[in-house]
Amino acid sequence: MDKLYIIKIGGHIVDDEARLARLLTSLAGLEERFILVHGGGKLATRLAEQLSIPQKMVDGRRITDAETLKVVTMVYAGLINKQLVAALQARNIKAVGMSGADGNLVLARKREKAGLDYGFAGDIVSVNNAFILMMLEQDFVPVVAPITHDGHGQLLNTNADTMASELAAALASHFETHLVFSFEKKGVMLDLEDESSLIGRLNHRDYLRLREEGRIFSGMLPKMDNAFAAMEAGVARVIIGPAEDLDQLLAGRTGTSLAND
Amino acid sequence: MDKLYIIKIGGHIVDDEARLARLLTSLAGLEERFILVHGGGKLATRLAEQLSIPQKMVDGRRITDAETLKVVTMVYAGLINKQLVAALQARNIKAVGMSGADGNLVLARKREKAGLDYGFAGDIVSVNNAFILMMLEQDFVPVVAPITHDGHGQLLNTNADTMASELAAALASHFETHLVFSFEKKGVMLDLEDESSLIGRLNHRDYLRLREEGRIFSGMLPKMDNAFAAMEAGVARVIIGPAEDLDQLLAGRTGTSLAND
Repeated sequence: MDKLYIIKIGGHIVDDEARLARLLTSLAGLEERFILVHGGGKLATRLAEQLSIPQKMVDGRRITDAETLKVVTMVYAGLINKQLVAALQARNIKAVGMSGADGNLVLARKREKAGLDYGFAGDIVSVNNAFILMMLEQDFVPVVAPITHDGHGQLLNTNADTMASELAAALASHFETHLVFSFEKKGVMLDLEDESSLIGRLNHRDYLRLREEGRIFSGMLPKMDNAFAAMEAGVARVIIGPAEDLDQLLAGRTGTSLAND
Repeated sequence: MDKLYIIKIGGHIVDDEARLARLLTSLAGLEERFILVHGGGKLATRLAEQLSIPQKMVDGRRITDAETLKVVTMVYAGLINKQLVAALQARNIKAVGMSGADGNLVLARKREKAGLDYGFAGDIVSVNNAFILMMLEQDFVPVVAPITHDGHGQLLNTNADTMASELAAALASHFETHLVFSFEKKGVMLDLEDESSLIGRLNHRDYLRLREEGRIFSGMLPKMDNAFAAMEAGVARVIIGPAEDLDQLLAGRTGTSLAND
């Protein structure tokens, strides 16, 4: 099977012009097919502030109300997506930006749990492989914004890590799929203040133990759960680490690699 | 040759939820292939106001400065484009939203004329037929936002009428191409206050005469020039008229049809 990289970049890179330019140049040098999935960065938060849209939090989670949904659709699927596409095109990459609504790429349903209103947050129902395979077969590079739709005309806000995981899982039977979560940290660390505590290789059993002991926590948990779910679904490899040196990260020389054993 | 409709919808329809819904339902009923090109509506202006971005005008034209470019990219390529795509998907149309940067669909260059700075306005250089033909052959419906790129990473703001005309012209050798400018008026009228002054059929010679006499003027001129340029380039038919009843418009029973004689 051909190799396919699904590379998720987070807000810290999107917000940092110089680092982003380096990352895109590295991506342009890849010989393998890839899909870029991006998050939002501080732009959406800043825009919501400028527009005086109150940001509601429930249990520490931001609620996507109707106005916030407009903001993230504009920032993620509009500004950031098209800036990334134009920057990749300038590097001779046949980038095509898309949200989950385009080509019905990612169908989702509005999250509803036990009476709690999460607003317009979308949990993924299905990935349209036919559409993304057509793009990949024609050597186009999908650049995916974390906005989905419910099939009834409603756009929804979906976590970018989850988008990347679900795309990787859906494509695992067609490609040797490598899922890469690039972010601002060195990888999974037992002590965020100590880079030598980086875990180079982590299997599911050890992860569950560390989680139970409270040594992997908060923001890392959804990312890790997404990552192991992708492994379960047949993804060949998941790497979590810094975007500074993409070649090193893809070679497994930096960051944390998840293991199946 | 197969028939292809290229339908441009303007801001008045985008802003009017009920009329837009009816138009999209009509579109979903079309048996022929189509491309939807959309403008912006008042949303971009409103957002610029809310963000206190001063709107500069030179010779009556709005100047797209860096901040305004961000606004139109967010509103056109983000919010409006994805809302249209989701609404068409809900009607079982395989819509795929795109800007001119995606798949290098429309390459443009920054407008520069005689020392006047138009900001980030893009004049179209070329249309990537290969990309749009691939989408059409797979029965996808392109939904095109009037944002282009210069091939060096810079996004540009391009007139939606011009986008529609250039797409029609580029595809005229592959399809029997029908270009439809739908807008808030009944068509080309000699007296805007008098609907009976609608011109049902207009050839280039008569248009030039009416323009010289000052009887077709201001906002209509770029639209008409675009329309006749498309005719010159081999587009089979151009119709200008109201979006209220798309079937009537496509059948040539309402609006103004341009003639080659």
